[in-house]
Amino acid sequence: MRLAIAGVGNNAAALAQGIAFYGSPQGQHLPGVTRPWLCGIHVTDVEIVAAFETDARKTGRPFTEAIFAGTNNYPMLPTGVTGPDPVVLEGITDPDHEAQIDRVADQLRDARADVLLYSLPTGLPQTALAYAHAAIRAGVHLVNCTPDPMARDEDVMKRATKEGVRVVGDDLQSHLGSSVVHGALLELVQDRGLTLSGSYQVNFGGNADFQNLVTNGSAKEHSKHNALRQRVADTGKVTVIPSGGFVPYLEDRKVAHISIEGRGWADTPVKLDVALGVQDSSNAAGVIIDLVRIAAAHTGAEEGGFPLLAAPLLKSAPIEGDVRHSMELARSLLEQASAQRNG
Amino acid sequence: MRLAIAGVGNNAAALAQGIAFYGSPQGQHLPGVTRPWLCGIHVTDVEIVAAFETDARKTGRPFTEAIFAGTNNYPMLPTGVTGPDPVVLEGITDPDHEAQIDRVADQLRDARADVLLYSLPTGLPQTALAYAHAAIRAGVHLVNCTPDPMARDEDVMKRATKEGVRVVGDDLQSHLGSSVVHGALLELVQDRGLTLSGSYQVNFGGNADFQNLVTNGSAKEHSKHNALRQRVADTGKVTVIPSGGFVPYLEDRKVAHISIEGRGWADTPVKLDVALGVQDSSNAAGVIIDLVRIAAAHTGAEEGGFPLLAAPLLKSAPIEGDVRHSMELARSLLEQASAQRNG
Amino acid sequence: MRLAIAGVGNNAAALAQGIAFYGSPQGQHLPGVTRPWLCGIHVTDVEIVAAFETDARKTGRPFTEAIFAGTNNYPMLPTGVTGPDPVVLEGITDPDHEAQIDRVADQLRDARADVLLYSLPTGLPQTALAYAHAAIRAGVHLVNCTPDPMARDEDVMKRATKEGVRVVGDDLQSHLGSSVVHGALLELVQDRGLTLSGSYQVNFGGNADFQNLVTNGSAKEHSKHNALRQRVADTGKVTVIPSGGFVPYLEDRKVAHISIEGRGWADTPVKLDVALGVQDSSNAAGVIIDLVRIAAAHTGAEEGGFPLLAAPLLKSAPIEGDVRHSMELARSLLEQASAQRNG
Amino acid sequence: MRLAIAGVGNNAAALAQGIAFYGSPQGQHLPGVTRPWLCGIHVTDVEIVAAFETDARKTGRPFTEAIFAGTNNYPMLPTGVTGPDPVVLEGITDPDHEAQIDRVADQLRDARADVLLYSLPTGLPQTALAYAHAAIRAGVHLVNCTPDPMARDEDVMKRATKEGVRVVGDDLQSHLGSSVVHGALLELVQDRGLTLSGSYQVNFGGNADFQNLVTNGSAKEHSKHNALRQRVADTGKVTVIPSGGFVPYLEDRKVAHISIEGRGWADTPVKLDVALGVQDSSNAAGVIIDLVRIAAAHTGAEEGGFPLLAAPLLKSAPIEGDVRHSMELARSLLEQASAQRNG
Repeated sequence: MRLAIAGVGNNAAALAQGIAFYGSPQGQHLPGVTRPWLCGIHVTDVEIVAAFETDARKTGRPFTEAIFAGTNNYPMLPTGVTGPDPVVLEGITDPDHEAQIDRVADQLRDARADVLLYSLPTGLPQTALAYAHAAIRAGVHLVNCTPDPMARDEDVMKRATKEGVRVVGDDLQSHLGSSVVHGALLELVQDRGLTLSGSYQVNFGGNADFQNLVTNGSAKEHSKHNALRQRVADTGKVTVIPSGGFVPYLEDRKVAHISIEGRGWADTPVKLDVALGVQDSSNAAGVIIDLVRIAAAHTGAEEGGFPLLAAPLLKSAPIEGDVRHSMELARSLLEQASAQRNG
Repeated sequence: MRLAIAGVGNNAAALAQGIAFYGSPQGQHLPGVTRPWLCGIHVTDVEIVAAFETDARKTGRPFTEAIFAGTNNYPMLPTGVTGPDPVVLEGITDPDHEAQIDRVADQLRDARADVLLYSLPTGLPQTALAYAHAAIRAGVHLVNCTPDPMARDEDVMKRATKEGVRVVGDDLQSHLGSSVVHGALLELVQDRGLTLSGSYQVNFGGNADFQNLVTNGSAKEHSKHNALRQRVADTGKVTVIPSGGFVPYLEDRKVAHISIEGRGWADTPVKLDVALGVQDSSNAAGVIIDLVRIAAAHTGAEEGGFPLLAAPLLKSAPIEGDVRHSMELARSLLEQASAQRNG
Repeated sequence: MRLAIAGVGNNAAALAQGIAFYGSPQGQHLPGVTRPWLCGIHVTDVEIVAAFETDARKTGRPFTEAIFAGTNNYPMLPTGVTGPDPVVLEGITDPDHEAQIDRVADQLRDARADVLLYSLPTGLPQTALAYAHAAIRAGVHLVNCTPDPMARDEDVMKRATKEGVRVVGDDLQSHLGSSVVHGALLELVQDRGLTLSGSYQVNFGGNADFQNLVTNGSAKEHSKHNALRQRVADTGKVTVIPSGGFVPYLEDRKVAHISIEGRGWADTPVKLDVALGVQDSSNAAGVIIDLVRIAAAHTGAEEGGFPLLAAPLLKSAPIEGDVRHSMELARSLLEQASAQRNG
Repeated sequence: MRLAIAGVGNNAAALAQGIAFYGSPQGQHLPGVTRPWLCGIHVTDVEIVAAFETDARKTGRPFTEAIFAGTNNYPMLPTGVTGPDPVVLEGITDPDHEAQIDRVADQLRDARADVLLYSLPTGLPQTALAYAHAAIRAGVHLVNCTPDPMARDEDVMKRATKEGVRVVGDDLQSHLGSSVVHGALLELVQDRGLTLSGSYQVNFGGNADFQNLVTNGSAKEHSKHNALRQRVADTGKVTVIPSGGFVPYLEDRKVAHISIEGRGWADTPVKLDVALGVQDSSNAAGVIIDLVRIAAAHTGAEEGGFPLLAAPLLKSAPIEGDVRHSMELARSLLEQASAQRNG
């Protein structure tokens, strides 16, 4: 499975090093992998064949160097990176410039990429669309792991469906992220019949994503509220703060503080405080590995457009109508696709 | 619905004051109540008509005084206690003494009790059985909210079934207890495909239950592991400490610390730390109110023996064979019974 | 001791209700009071004789109503408010308008105020100076509990000193605030010889102060760093976030999360995580009660200008030169003044 | 400086590996070291020349193997162990057996040890005394890092003083331990004039010390209360639980949960929750390195008996009379001795 990446940030560093780790003797039992096989593709079958960037500290350099350059701060793992080591290409600097889009489409074709993973900083919606159009022109499937709209963009979806290109997005549910934990606990409080008094979730980190979010958090906040609403009826008393601040020494680690207050029997108080610490980009890469395999799908998601089985892995999937029913169906499709080995 | 109670501890104080609170104007929206109606009985329909104790600071006194006497330390709520105020009767001091069992059976009949709630300190298995036999002789249904065996005692169940007496036990899942939260989070970690490195759960409190547990925690620990096993495949790496110590100033509050460590993508670490603070006996009473209504059941649990719909509310229900299937069935029966109003 | 207040917010509500509480039978042992007597004045000797506001929901109404109006959300305590109940006066709306300053000066004189407490939202430096000049004209001592400069304003201090007016500011150290706890723990880590890897402090709340800080936090951040620098040598690895977000359901409560990571013997990791929960305005009022008594000083701070003994209670005191020596002197003066009873 | 060790547990593993680490290029800036020089001895001057054990999995093996054998679970650091590698000797199995004491005394003399560090599991008071007598006979100085009495044993101290042997004990304050953090925060709450409602401290770990403490925690609890009393007036409302349980997966890590509740201004609540995570034996070794140098003292502690400058590093120093004054003196002596380089 041949993967191209737009954005050589921490996610790229985590993904590439993880694939190498799982191919090494230490990684053979696949610790931290949810689905060894998905849609007929094994975790270690994914290889990175092209990468696009606009940061001059990364472009023109080998991918294996660029993933540790610039503001990147994912740890360097002892097992390194294996497989091809493409030189990082110049990305799209002006989304209105058709020639750039055509050039990227050509480069995707030249690299014989199956899938393009879009993983630039949040808050560049025009650039996201430009990459989408480049991939569609090249007949390359798409994964969007940011909250900027791609699968929720009508025009993109119309063209992609016509060209048989799959679009997996938008915004990934991270592996064990604050939205997932917060949602599970709010659901628990609701199911047990406790009355919610109020709740907050706040996230901190020291990577470029957090630096970016401090001034540009609204798309993320919206996407996080979407994720909670899938599980909890009343989110009106819940405050979600995607980035409470940029804390440099945390580097690529992320810390989330979640607090839930409620009233139990006889109106007596109940309090639940949670601290979640994760390697932010590992948390993303552990789900990206599934999204790119769904996009490349040897089996189980053959058509163009949005493959429903990806919905449980996304914060803002383009689902309308009876969401609960669609999600149940999606979960069962995903389970089926996880059972399929190559063939 | 006429309820007798064996053990006038904090649970009795929480239950009686909660019922009064929900009958008052402040409580009319039922904050903290999971099921306003259950088996055709409303929360405010329950009244306490008899109580048994062996503590001389409580026996012979009105119930409304006894619930604040001795080592009891549940808070005194402003709405007080309403309904009958029975004088606290002498309980069973010698479980081998048949005459005591007969006397309690007579007193249950005299009080026209529908249900006997067994709520003595954990670690008195013979006394639990003695009360069970007294209730069966009197044709009174049983609820056991302790981990000492009653519904898991073959002899009790044989006789109860024969006499058409329902036995709801053993050991209640508290409303939002540490086992429920711990189980939900371990399940989440498992479902997301993270590898569990280790986990602990430890509980502290300042009520008589905690003083008792420090030296007598093994039945509780066993019951808590049962509760986790309903949800999580591998509990071998999980340490459960029902009482890490007796902390007097907490009084009837309970604090649980839960920690979960795992490995995510590329073997990078994930950590989840939780602190849960509850009013311990409110947490019990919020479930006891359901158990006693299932036992009294105007509808939905008409036979003797163990009523399956109680299983989701218990830590050690007497279920054998296909547990997963039985629990699913139980949940749907419970949901049905929650929808039924009086009639 | 006759106190005027500029700003009828939560601080005013906490201060007035606290004084009444300590005058009541329940409060007679003075729980939460650091110094029953200070500069010859007892906690219960303070009475509020005038109040200024610009919020139309508060002006023209009795002080005891205004403290619960508008966005105020300090809890209403059962012991209420005692003493005079002045009608809330129109405050300074245009700090460049000399006539307003003169009017306020006249009103302070009319009310025979000893001290003016400046307690408006942070971020109005011109308004702070306008009130300072009004007080100096009226010969009324000043307390500034905000980080906007007053005691650090040269012009104010020159005039105040000349007129024998004391200026107690700027920005109070709260009673048990995040800066105090954070500073104590960083100092501990430093003293024990551990190597600091990094640390953050982040604060949340639901009162008007937090709503204001989200967009206007830089003066506060600067003042908080000042406070840390009094105790810790190297604050370069420490991130301070005065407001990580506005969390409405917390109302006047404040939550701070503090995290410290370091390296111990053999470079092994050490981690310290703290959650601090306080009633934000109580935390201020417990120190304001000391600042206003120092300003009114029957004994111990007789001169105009900045009274040194206030320095340990402030985040940004106007101290230059040998700070460590001045603080030691200040602490001993404060201790002396705390021992003095009225006379 | 030639050190003998009784007890080849995690403390020995931490001490030996730390000394090697600080002698390596990575460790040259001495991260985590409080005092590079103490009493004229540098951290890297300490070498381990003899070791005693009774565990058959350790005796007769080289020290560098034994520190990872049996129940030891301190991590193996990449810089390894440098210096001599003595074969582990048979320790004292019967403290009443004079010949064993004499043998150990001979072996200490043969090894030309300057100091014997006593570091066996807590709860073996007779064995502690036996090692003390062996060291005194050999004229070797003593360090006791356990709470079993040695420096508080009259007979030991009389003989040691007579023979010019220094006895540094009992029970070390760990580098950044729960007692130190708890004491600092309780002191802070007290100094700020808040009223303490209650507080607890509870510790967990997965090393042999914690397995041992569950059943044998009273000497430790006593010693921890001593440590708190040095700083806080009223410890009556404070619950200290040296071991809340044995949590195997934590291995040599230790987790402490500390909670403090108080009342602030107007009797409103204040809450402080702390989690402390440390490498337990690093936390000990970082202080042991100071205690052994005080015992060996080229300068600053020349006499036999208890060297006062060690008091700030101990939980139960043998100090009587005016403790506050003695501690101040001790601190200044310790500061002086830290400034002395070799000469």
